[in-house]
Amino acid sequence: MKIVWIAPVGTGRFDDRILSFINRIRRSDVDAEVIHLSPGLPDNLEYHVYEHMVEDDLLHAIVDYEKKGHDAAIIGCFYDGGLREARELVKMPVIAEEEASIHVAATLGHKFSIIVGRRKWLPKMEDNVRVYGLSEKLASMRIVQFSIEKIASDRAGYLEAVKRESHLAVAEDGAEVIVLSEEASFDYDDLLDLQAHLGVPVLDPLIVGWKFAELMADLKRHGIAHSKIGGYEAPPTDELKRFDC
Amino acid sequence: MKIVWIAPVGTGRFDDRILSFINRIRRSDVDAEVIHLSPGLPDNLEYHVYEHMVEDDLLHAIVDYEKKGHDAAIIGCFYDGGLREARELVKMPVIAEEEASIHVAATLGHKFSIIVGRRKWLPKMEDNVRVYGLSEKLASMRIVQFSIEKIASDRAGYLEAVKRESHLAVAEDGAEVIVLSEEASFDYDDLLDLQAHLGVPVLDPLIVGWKFAELMADLKRHGIAHSKIGGYEAPPTDELKRFDC
Amino acid sequence: MKIVWIAPVGTGRFDDRILSFINRIRRSDVDAEVIHLSPGLPDNLEYHVYEHMVEDDLLHAIVDYEKKGHDAAIIGCFYDGGLREARELVKMPVIAEEEASIHVAATLGHKFSIIVGRRKWLPKMEDNVRVYGLSEKLASMRIVQFSIEKIASDRAGYLEAVKRESHLAVAEDGAEVIVLSEEASFDYDDLLDLQAHLGVPVLDPLIVGWKFAELMADLKRHGIAHSKIGGYEAPPTDELKRFDC
Amino acid sequence: MKIVWIAPVGTGRFDDRILSFINRIRRSDVDAEVIHLSPGLPDNLEYHVYEHMVEDDLLHAIVDYEKKGHDAAIIGCFYDGGLREARELVKMPVIAEEEASIHVAATLGHKFSIIVGRRKWLPKMEDNVRVYGLSEKLASMRIVQFSIEKIASDRAGYLEAVKRESHLAVAEDGAEVIVLSEEASFDYDDLLDLQAHLGVPVLDPLIVGWKFAELMADLKRHGIAHSKIGGYEAPPTDELKRFDC
Amino acid sequence: MKIVWIAPVGTGRFDDRILSFINRIRRSDVDAEVIHLSPGLPDNLEYHVYEHMVEDDLLHAIVDYEKKGHDAAIIGCFYDGGLREARELVKMPVIAEEEASIHVAATLGHKFSIIVGRRKWLPKMEDNVRVYGLSEKLASMRIVQFSIEKIASDRAGYLEAVKRESHLAVAEDGAEVIVLSEEASFDYDDLLDLQAHLGVPVLDPLIVGWKFAELMADLKRHGIAHSKIGGYEAPPTDELKRFDC
Amino acid sequence: MKIVWIAPVGTGRFDDRILSFINRIRRSDVDAEVIHLSPGLPDNLEYHVYEHMVEDDLLHAIVDYEKKGHDAAIIGCFYDGGLREARELVKMPVIAEEEASIHVAATLGHKFSIIVGRRKWLPKMEDNVRVYGLSEKLASMRIVQFSIEKIASDRAGYLEAVKRESHLAVAEDGAEVIVLSEEASFDYDDLLDLQAHLGVPVLDPLIVGWKFAELMADLKRHGIAHSKIGGYEAPPTDELKRFDC
Repeated sequence: MKIVWIAPVGTGRFDDRILSFINRIRRSDVDAEVIHLSPGLPDNLEYHVYEHMVEDDLLHAIVDYEKKGHDAAIIGCFYDGGLREARELVKMPVIAEEEASIHVAATLGHKFSIIVGRRKWLPKMEDNVRVYGLSEKLASMRIVQFSIEKIASDRAGYLEAVKRESHLAVAEDGAEVIVLSEEASFDYDDLLDLQAHLGVPVLDPLIVGWKFAELMADLKRHGIAHSKIGGYEAPPTDELKRFDC
Repeated sequence: MKIVWIAPVGTGRFDDRILSFINRIRRSDVDAEVIHLSPGLPDNLEYHVYEHMVEDDLLHAIVDYEKKGHDAAIIGCFYDGGLREARELVKMPVIAEEEASIHVAATLGHKFSIIVGRRKWLPKMEDNVRVYGLSEKLASMRIVQFSIEKIASDRAGYLEAVKRESHLAVAEDGAEVIVLSEEASFDYDDLLDLQAHLGVPVLDPLIVGWKFAELMADLKRHGIAHSKIGGYEAPPTDELKRFDC
Repeated sequence: MKIVWIAPVGTGRFDDRILSFINRIRRSDVDAEVIHLSPGLPDNLEYHVYEHMVEDDLLHAIVDYEKKGHDAAIIGCFYDGGLREARELVKMPVIAEEEASIHVAATLGHKFSIIVGRRKWLPKMEDNVRVYGLSEKLASMRIVQFSIEKIASDRAGYLEAVKRESHLAVAEDGAEVIVLSEEASFDYDDLLDLQAHLGVPVLDPLIVGWKFAELMADLKRHGIAHSKIGGYEAPPTDELKRFDC
Repeated sequence: MKIVWIAPVGTGRFDDRILSFINRIRRSDVDAEVIHLSPGLPDNLEYHVYEHMVEDDLLHAIVDYEKKGHDAAIIGCFYDGGLREARELVKMPVIAEEEASIHVAATLGHKFSIIVGRRKWLPKMEDNVRVYGLSEKLASMRIVQFSIEKIASDRAGYLEAVKRESHLAVAEDGAEVIVLSEEASFDYDDLLDLQAHLGVPVLDPLIVGWKFAELMADLKRHGIAHSKIGGYEAPPTDELKRFDC
Repeated sequence: MKIVWIAPVGTGRFDDRILSFINRIRRSDVDAEVIHLSPGLPDNLEYHVYEHMVEDDLLHAIVDYEKKGHDAAIIGCFYDGGLREARELVKMPVIAEEEASIHVAATLGHKFSIIVGRRKWLPKMEDNVRVYGLSEKLASMRIVQFSIEKIASDRAGYLEAVKRESHLAVAEDGAEVIVLSEEASFDYDDLLDLQAHLGVPVLDPLIVGWKFAELMADLKRHGIAHSKIGGYEAPPTDELKRFDC
Repeated sequence: MKIVWIAPVGTGRFDDRILSFINRIRRSDVDAEVIHLSPGLPDNLEYHVYEHMVEDDLLHAIVDYEKKGHDAAIIGCFYDGGLREARELVKMPVIAEEEASIHVAATLGHKFSIIVGRRKWLPKMEDNVRVYGLSEKLASMRIVQFSIEKIASDRAGYLEAVKRESHLAVAEDGAEVIVLSEEASFDYDDLLDLQAHLGVPVLDPLIVGWKFAELMADLKRHGIAHSKIGGYEAPPTDELKRFDC
């Protein structure tokens, strides 16, 4: 079985980090591939217009990997941008980080909190919670005031901030589970330490996204994948060809 | 005051129809412009991937019209695609058809129903209702089984179908207000007749979208426009230049 | 086009202030009238029983202004008292401050907060949010501990309190938009300064109520007004005569 | 212990019927009084403006009965009009039919349906369900197309219609409990027969309202009554005197 | 009329306290019985597995008391454990503390807060609020950090903690009503003092549970009890015999 | 890796069927065990009191399998009975059929419907949807009028009924995904045919429950399991010993 993780940015600088994380957690019967998009595209998705900029490449990549026979693709960003469009275009399972993470989180405890980098991120991520139907399970969203750039350049500081806000989420907001909104943002051992420190599960969207993709790739073999009636109905084949997509 | 209506499709075939509608309803102190996007782009937005395809052009158009000094822009599609990104990029009010229509509808009666062309359209349109916070006021969404193409080629049949489903929405679902999801889909007089026949207000997203844009353009003069803290925070100017947007 | 603003109290002491505010914001094609109710009636609506006391006069005024040919009436109190009854009695648009303000607010950002004078006001105003269907968009309601009387006698102190609580609403509660519950409570320039200071739109119910009334008066010309099927169904004409209403 | 049932209409034509019903269900240690309001007032509350018309008399009656030392008052109309104002004015428990009925209904089964006379009644009654916080327990509201006048003049026909719609509520909407919105609308034995026929509890708002009033009158002795902090805060005594209320 | 209060624990150490409380509040026409379960069963229900351990005895007790002709039974624990099963087995009203308390609380003010002993208790108690349909009326749940054991051994300290957290619930969370989650946890006079101190009603689940049981026992005489169609449908008689229940 | 499927009934008659199903879907690196409970216990869980009867055995089995070193246990009933208690007692992942099935369903389409055997089952299953936080994603629950006994004795008739109601759920209720509430109720090939016939994914709780358990067993290796702070906090070890659990 083959699954591709797509970093929807125009830089490969995180690819090794992500692949080494995946190699730590993937099933031995699943091959992992990590790719990124064309150079020149944004190297972060802080803004929704950047999500738009990368979407074209992202969708073509997903279509290509389905053609190559992959079993699932993961969109590696917690905004879940392009999910609706991707599921229109392919039958292969397409996994989105936030969707996968919060559904798993909801099964692990009474309520979960999401730790968010910047205030900017919060509205779309909270709207996603609403659209995915899980508002009732959301204890809080807490902001650590770290941009993606700042996370990458100061992982120790970010870890401290996440520890602090997660602790507050557990102690004051009633969270029993913590969901991170940035994938592989700590070293694996730091993540384990953080869980031990907080005493509650901490979901990294890379880990949960990947494992959920393995689940969905398995289910696909039994005919179970995203529904093609309704919201994910595909455009007519001839129209798609005309638009070269 | 100047407001631009953007048909987010690669065809101008509806422009005259829309402009003549707007001329019927616009305030005399407001200039109307109706534009469409580049040829070759999809001529309808049945599918979300088509929404994606037109978004680049759409966003550039909105940015351009702000630079030209327009007072508001309207995205002429009930999916409200690109709204988040557009509001990131400009300070000028950007109006979306579904958002404007259902907020006005909510003030006119106990509950409203949305008449939807195809089942395909329903999930995103209903998710929008959730995100806009109005699920409690939604009586139902009823499907008339008309694609955009079929609406354009059989307006009489479409009118009959809308009449039938709207009547059922009022009689069985408890709707006190009807919201159409396709703009200017009838002649103006047919719309008045439909209202008279049903006995409830029927909101055409072109009429409500336009008038709401006039309202927002007015409010902008008093410093009121979409918030730039949080979800609509703009990307840094220098980054945007780099990406030529 | 003619619109009447009704101060539902037995004093005209705020009329000039309100009229001068309206003159600043009204369209040039709309005539403004500001009226108050009979002397002896309560001069504020802190309590719901006061709302009841003024309602008779209020309803008669609304009916009279419809007969005079006005295009819309605004009930000038954020409790929105008498709205249901007024819409039963007339076909002319009747605009309520809270309803208009929060629907506009909902289109301007992820969530809004309402700044409330006294705790006493909060339950009905929050129940209104529920009934209007917008609970999901409400970030918080914050209390400044000012009665209507105290607002009128200490506008500077009130402005400070609003500034403080609005800032907290934005910084701690996630509000991207602020809604005031007392109309024209600052001078127009102070309002602009407050917006600049906070960096988010601040909705004065007088401004938004008035502009929404202009919108609704426009829409009325196209047959769109509150639905007369269901909740706003009018009593039989002969019964109303019997009760002299 | 003494409890007064107030028929908020200007006619005493239902008083005997209601009193004989109450005598059938009241505790022997509770004295019952049934009153109506001034002649000339509406003899039904089909419309919200009629609710307004009777409210003055209604509030004065409630204040009077508190002064007389009664232990509770019941507002005998399922719109629950005047509840907020009444609870401002007195400390004695004031019971409203819909509020009492649906809270009891919610404890008796998974979901309840409300049988409504006319479509006109539905929006306010459903808004009450929202404000009382019980939307999640509402299976449906079903309309029998009977005005209050028609109920009074054709009780047999009304009983048939209620039986039919209640059966559908149970069979198709998932209701496990039926709530009537018109008090004492059948003879007591017919009510028992209806329950036997349907196999589910059927709540007459007179029975439930009365028994809930007995409960609240008991609780009052232990210091428990509606809260006087917040929404039911009373106006200052001197102000009330000035307004003779 | 006879009502039994069942302390669902294997100890009688609270029976006298509870009976003396009930004797203070019961109607003179209602006989009270207080029982506990078999020795060896848990003496507190801090954990859900303890709820399970006592449920067998609890259900048999409820069935027995129905056979004896009692009019209602009360499950004396705020987790409401066994309610669903008990209502399957009997037709006699079975009252649960949390269900009764929060429905009454909802009628007394805008929102209520529940004071919870330990964080452990909160998730199930909040899930109950959801299932009973009252999430919208819940202001907050506040934790005093007292186990049942600690409450029993330090009532003065517990009273202080409840006073402190209740005050915060009223002052900061918007609660107009306080609901306790431990029955008879103060002396009756302390409860009255607490209400006077806070200025809002404080609901002891023993008082409200008992009075609600009296209400339901009364309603049973008019054919009103929990619905036996749907969720509370009883197992076939012969099957139950086989399982000796 | 070893996972145990527990049929919470006192009969082994379904064990072979379930095991053969699991063998079809399990990962080759996961060992499957299927067990049932003590003879004499109910052989179906139509009623909640039967759920209670089997819970003791069920909990002891789960504790035992954790001691044996298993990686996860699945409670094989769509009522999810005993989940809260089981998660208190162990750290090993405990998977419940409904919880797992509806979270997966929610990721596969706009809304899902649950096909329910008998009306009796519906309230608890719908309450579970609420407690799990997914009410917004539930299109409908449809009843096929088959008891567990009848399903076992007439699988062909049951299949027809499921096909009919699922079709209606898709065509009329807006379901894009179907969730079954009885595990392994068809042969595997019939399930595939049903999916092909309906054109939407059909989730058998056995398949989804099992695969979700594999996911959770994997996640456990990275420290992620149900939270032990809050609702699933375990009783003190010494207390548990005393109660022999």
